[in-house]
Amino acid sequence: MTRPSETISSASNPLVKTLKSLERKKGRTETGLFLAEGARLIGQGLANGWKADCVVVAASMAERPHLADLIRQAETSGARVVLAADKLMSRITHKDNAQSVVAAFRQRHLGLDALPQTKDGLFVALYEVRDPGNLGTILRTADCAAISGVILVETCCDPYSFEAVRASMGSIFDMPFASASFDQFNAWRKGLGLNMSAASVNGTARHDRTDFTGGSVIIMGNEQSGLPAHAEAACDQLCLIPMRGGADSLNLAQATAIMTYEAWRQRDFK
Amino acid sequence: MTRPSETISSASNPLVKTLKSLERKKGRTETGLFLAEGARLIGQGLANGWKADCVVVAASMAERPHLADLIRQAETSGARVVLAADKLMSRITHKDNAQSVVAAFRQRHLGLDALPQTKDGLFVALYEVRDPGNLGTILRTADCAAISGVILVETCCDPYSFEAVRASMGSIFDMPFASASFDQFNAWRKGLGLNMSAASVNGTARHDRTDFTGGSVIIMGNEQSGLPAHAEAACDQLCLIPMRGGADSLNLAQATAIMTYEAWRQRDFK
Repeated sequence: MTRPSETISSASNPLVKTLKSLERKKGRTETGLFLAEGARLIGQGLANGWKADCVVVAASMAERPHLADLIRQAETSGARVVLAADKLMSRITHKDNAQSVVAAFRQRHLGLDALPQTKDGLFVALYEVRDPGNLGTILRTADCAAISGVILVETCCDPYSFEAVRASMGSIFDMPFASASFDQFNAWRKGLGLNMSAASVNGTARHDRTDFTGGSVIIMGNEQSGLPAHAEAACDQLCLIPMRGGADSLNLAQATAIMTYEAWRQRDFK
Repeated sequence: MTRPSETISSASNPLVKTLKSLERKKGRTETGLFLAEGARLIGQGLANGWKADCVVVAASMAERPHLADLIRQAETSGARVVLAADKLMSRITHKDNAQSVVAAFRQRHLGLDALPQTKDGLFVALYEVRDPGNLGTILRTADCAAISGVILVETCCDPYSFEAVRASMGSIFDMPFASASFDQFNAWRKGLGLNMSAASVNGTARHDRTDFTGGSVIIMGNEQSGLPAHAEAACDQLCLIPMRGGADSLNLAQATAIMTYEAWRQRDFK
């Protein structure tokens, strides 16, 4: 392999500062970048055609085969590849899970028109989801459950936060997602003829007795407050996931998994 | 109300040190206690008959009606109730979500004989679950899904860690759970005539085509390595949750939610 010529060793290097800044929303917004850590995740991003601005590899590890492969893949894609002293890596990557490679990818901000416009698709909409772990987990589950696209409605947490990217386990690069206001989203789904169902404490029909065999959107509310009344009123049906008396409620990501897998089951997992 | 007579104001008070020690496994093991934060969670513990050794309330908040109620409830249960200066509360409780009340509850370590011995029950077994957030979330979902009991098989993470207790949203106090070796557990479930099914990448039958209408245990493997071969071999069936090609795998708690709700659906949610 051609060893990357650029090596950084000082914590005051501007690249280190830029990468550190991506831990916060402000830094991500100013640069339009986000962090991905670990060879597997970064490899998935590159393989899915996402643009990495730079890839930083621990100098002591760069000749390991899987990292050498990743470096070649990154260089081919046009990314700046940099080696860093090991002590710097531990400053750049997250303490609880230090990695030998980290990359700054360019964010994508898609509108509804970038989603697959499938009239018989199954979509998930999240109304003001707040917890990045939930958001990432839902992207991962949606990816497993053959969901056509995820819509982030109104003001959701940042899908490019480190917690969301990590929880998505690579689905951030694979699961199409778009942001929209509720009105934009509702007009779009009506235009496609998608049926809209919410899981709600106000639901009456059991979720497994709700028909998901046609084109459908499952809309899920905020962790604390659920869906606002106007969004519930816009639904074609409100359904209820059964729960035993004593228990209070399901976690948002758990409820979304139960809804999406029930919907996909009704389609015989096709 | 009778205001608790005991007030602490120094960070060197032995009680503060004891409570701080409960953040770590060592402290929890030495004392047999665990932390619960917030009036709602602590109220649930007391209402379910769990024994709180002590309850510490922010002095400035103690006369608010919901805390005054909780103090009465705690005193009636025999707990030591202490007021603490507000600046101490922020040292005792977790920074990301400071609470006005914290309690040290006595742990319970149950064996299989303490679980409901229902031949037609639906149980969840977790084999070496490692992530406390997953464990707590699974207790919460099991509680919602009318699961008879949860079995922690072999060496699992600590259900009494702060992360597990928080993720359980009170189900730690409500969902019966026991610890056992695999052999003990397997003998117990055979004695009750429970069918054992695993969700596994080696599964052949779709999870929704697996029969859960009789007494059943759903066993789920470790986050990284799944179930060991001997445990899979002991199962009556290995089932497969369908996943779209591109996606890698579901999060453990998500997979458990999908399995338990499918099983409960087959029982018509009774």
